[in-house]
Amino acid sequence: MKLFFLSLLFIFSGNTFAQDPLPAWNDGPSKKAIIRFVQETTRAGSSQFISKEERIAVFDNDGTLWSEQPIYVQLAFAIDRIKTLAPQNPQWKTQQPFKAVLENDIQTVKASGHKGLFELIAATHAGMSTEAFQAIVSEWLKTARHPVTNRPYTEMVYQPMLELLAYLKSNGYTNYIVSGGGTEFMRPWTQKAYGIPPERIIGSAIKSKFVEVNGQYRIIGLPELEWINDGSNKPLAIQHQIGRRPVIAFGNSDGDQDMLLWTTGAPEPRLAGIIHHTDGAREVAYDRQSAIGKLNTALDLAPKNNWLVVDMKKDWRSIFPAIQPK
Amino acid sequence: MKLFFLSLLFIFSGNTFAQDPLPAWNDGPSKKAIIRFVQETTRAGSSQFISKEERIAVFDNDGTLWSEQPIYVQLAFAIDRIKTLAPQNPQWKTQQPFKAVLENDIQTVKASGHKGLFELIAATHAGMSTEAFQAIVSEWLKTARHPVTNRPYTEMVYQPMLELLAYLKSNGYTNYIVSGGGTEFMRPWTQKAYGIPPERIIGSAIKSKFVEVNGQYRIIGLPELEWINDGSNKPLAIQHQIGRRPVIAFGNSDGDQDMLLWTTGAPEPRLAGIIHHTDGAREVAYDRQSAIGKLNTALDLAPKNNWLVVDMKKDWRSIFPAIQPK
Repeated sequence: MKLFFLSLLFIFSGNTFAQDPLPAWNDGPSKKAIIRFVQETTRAGSSQFISKEERIAVFDNDGTLWSEQPIYVQLAFAIDRIKTLAPQNPQWKTQQPFKAVLENDIQTVKASGHKGLFELIAATHAGMSTEAFQAIVSEWLKTARHPVTNRPYTEMVYQPMLELLAYLKSNGYTNYIVSGGGTEFMRPWTQKAYGIPPERIIGSAIKSKFVEVNGQYRIIGLPELEWINDGSNKPLAIQHQIGRRPVIAFGNSDGDQDMLLWTTGAPEPRLAGIIHHTDGAREVAYDRQSAIGKLNTALDLAPKNNWLVVDMKKDWRSIFPAIQPK
Repeated sequence: MKLFFLSLLFIFSGNTFAQDPLPAWNDGPSKKAIIRFVQETTRAGSSQFISKEERIAVFDNDGTLWSEQPIYVQLAFAIDRIKTLAPQNPQWKTQQPFKAVLENDIQTVKASGHKGLFELIAATHAGMSTEAFQAIVSEWLKTARHPVTNRPYTEMVYQPMLELLAYLKSNGYTNYIVSGGGTEFMRPWTQKAYGIPPERIIGSAIKSKFVEVNGQYRIIGLPELEWINDGSNKPLAIQHQIGRRPVIAFGNSDGDQDMLLWTTGAPEPRLAGIIHHTDGAREVAYDRQSAIGKLNTALDLAPKNNWLVVDMKKDWRSIFPAIQPK
């Protein structure tokens, strides 16, 4: 019997001391603030207690949960897709921005601006059913590789953020993605990569129509934008789809600023964080001048709003998950 | 010890025999079909088994979960609100459709068509924050009474449908409302009335904007329609917000037809039902000719698509919940 109690003691003390919910985070102010906030909002009797139903955490995706450099993954997908479809579209050889894509002239693609990018999206995302589009995305992810690391894109996710998502989930928080990326582009892989199911993906969307073809019903994407989920549209989409003000929000760019302001502007306890890309050695260092993931005004607003600024170089022990054995 | 086992036996057999998950449903084909479907889709090893994540059930609201006669509850709200706001808007005395509202001339209100109805919605739903609007709805529901039964509107819900929602929930289904009614009009009361939280309400919406006033952030409704959640927009909204094809769908009018077609058009096991308002004594009998909740083409499509047609008169033992003791 004595051995039994000793074993119990060992088990409990083992749990207490060994269990670090965020091992890829260095011990520092960011990690401390996150853990303190989660403990205080979930401990029964705490003055900061938040009920389980209200524990909503929202996360930007590109640059917050996975890498967005050197170009957005969704743009890399569209470029590959244009190349795949080129044989059936011979006119693209002379037609911009398709010509630039086929010639790997990324500068001209970027210079084509919103109009050019939208033409690429329309040619690669519309005109098919949601199921067909998602199947294409899934197939592409199996073989596509990041141009710098040669990793599958789904292994370009940030290990510390995977841990944060799991930590929040295990504490009764419900995680949502609120991204400028396309909702249907993300849905095929976010459950496996992040543990976030399709119904918790809030992103940009093209218009669609409901059609019947030979007795089969389909939702078909149209070459027209429905919603660009960036800037002030992020809090609006959160209200539209969730209907609760988030308790926790993480982003990395000025496009996330309004989502963070909406979150921490609430009277109750709130936590917001900015992932600051400071690590040029292990990832890419960029902020105020970057064309992708520009972080300028949101960085200035951080101190006054008590937003954590997560310094990737200092705060993160590792950036990407260990390479999976094949 | 023998008594202990006898007690156990009593407890288990008691549970097995006494437990009717749908006591307000008469024993008949509708009830049988529902129970058989739920059992087969949730029993491990069943050829019709559906994983918990995929168990999505969608419900229309007006006429499916609560009464929509003699007018939609949301229109009754708008009318009462116009009367409340009339002293601050003296011009309404001579301006249609407001004049008709103030004179209780419902025929003229209806004759003002979509344009007139939209003016009423704009005057009563826009120009304030979501929180302020929801507070007004909550206050109104405390005192508003149904014109025929004199019950609070939240007691004009259908007891058999409350049981169905609870039965599905207890079997791992996730219930959503997919209604033509306003999302923000429903959110203040659906958790209490149906056990369906704000993030599972998919309805119509006005546009909104994100604004800062004196350091406070607000989402303000605009007098412009964003989304009318009816007809073919229902499957589109389901895809947009849930991203899964429903397994179960219930509606009561032609506006639900596409949602039901989308649901039962899937290759896997599916269940759809139409609530047919056949009971002129206990509620209101209406279908093919009704201005509200018209059920015509969807009724014709039911047999060929194997949709249940729930006959309120025959299938439902009771319509509304027992009056709550005050």
